[in-house]
Amino acid sequence: MSPKTRMIEVRENVLKQNDIVARALRQRFHEAGVFVVSLVSSPGAGKTALLEKTLALLQPQFRVAALVGDLATDNDAERLARSQAPVKQIITGTVCHLEAAMVQNALEGWRLDELDFLFIENVGNLVCPSSYDLAEDLRLVLMSVTEGEDKPLKYPTIFNSADVAVITKIDLATAAEFNAAAANRSIQAVRPGMTVLNVSAKSAGGMKEFLQFLLSHRAAAHAVASPG
Amino acid sequence: MSPKTRMIEVRENVLKQNDIVARALRQRFHEAGVFVVSLVSSPGAGKTALLEKTLALLQPQFRVAALVGDLATDNDAERLARSQAPVKQIITGTVCHLEAAMVQNALEGWRLDELDFLFIENVGNLVCPSSYDLAEDLRLVLMSVTEGEDKPLKYPTIFNSADVAVITKIDLATAAEFNAAAANRSIQAVRPGMTVLNVSAKSAGGMKEFLQFLLSHRAAAHAVASPG
Repeated sequence: MSPKTRMIEVRENVLKQNDIVARALRQRFHEAGVFVVSLVSSPGAGKTALLEKTLALLQPQFRVAALVGDLATDNDAERLARSQAPVKQIITGTVCHLEAAMVQNALEGWRLDELDFLFIENVGNLVCPSSYDLAEDLRLVLMSVTEGEDKPLKYPTIFNSADVAVITKIDLATAAEFNAAAANRSIQAVRPGMTVLNVSAKSAGGMKEFLQFLLSHRAAAHAVASPG
Repeated sequence: MSPKTRMIEVRENVLKQNDIVARALRQRFHEAGVFVVSLVSSPGAGKTALLEKTLALLQPQFRVAALVGDLATDNDAERLARSQAPVKQIITGTVCHLEAAMVQNALEGWRLDELDFLFIENVGNLVCPSSYDLAEDLRLVLMSVTEGEDKPLKYPTIFNSADVAVITKIDLATAAEFNAAAANRSIQAVRPGMTVLNVSAKSAGGMKEFLQFLLSHRAAAHAVASPG
């Protein structure tokens, strides 16, 4: 057996283990009535900036919290903590994605039933996070207008594993000569019918629609959870 | 033994295998007199754009070729092929980095002694490529002005594994409110004394200095290779 084959087999074991943890976690989220949204993207696409803005805008009305993953530093947690929302940093060391068990550990000491929204910011990576279920209700894949319109074609798995595509930094669209039609074509080629939202955390452009989208999906999840 | 431990052990075997292939490859490059430069960065930092510009500017005087890695699509090879330089796409499937063996295979049929420069564009990823030696003379890590100044702190390993940091898209620096001093502080904190170059493939800003840097390093490598 070659080293390559063994690596794949072992990885499959780790994945199965992750699915077991994720299933239990999903059940807990469900029972607590917390709506869980995860964010994946390449490094620097603006996950933390979008989250900062989102926490600030939701907080007057909703109880929100966030977990943020990075290989090193707690810079993102520090940034998000300014919102006064509960925030925890998950340091992954050399691991290029979050796993359900890391989420589970980070939640220790938090009362989930006191939360309306939990956001999970994954490590900046367009490959590794795609196969790990974090028990989220909604997975957002972000791409910024400066990254190139063909990113979905080059990283199809992560776009396929996500529920929604969010184009970020639209305030830079003109300066970056962003071609929105081409980007949309790439997204639809990989995942036909995928919802695409446009936001700028800096100018707040598109944030109203983005929040509306989150709220309506949370409402829909609750309607399913407690029919009648 | 936990699945995690086994995965790490197996990965070490793969890495050792990679080092053996890389050593032989380095010997071949050395004997052929070709100077090999690899590029790593997050997706969308502008590796292909920088390479396009570099090939075009070097080609009147030098024999250049390029290998480009991606999970899917040969978009980058198509873009680079416009330069008329020999270009090959390496499709990695689900693998988030290039390995020395992939480079070796892709070189089949090429006469290395007919090349002055070989460029290797890695898969867009700030984690996985760091541990794989591709037998390059120079590894460039790119970060664009839109990615956030603290990227080196968050991805220290890849910055540590590279020889030079290249700040890209400097034409967008003002629009992105890029803080060059903060970026440099992050780089120097991770790797004290690291050379930092600034380029814009779009405006050609900094390209002259960038090419000068490559040429002087190639000359230095040759001086070592054939003393006297």
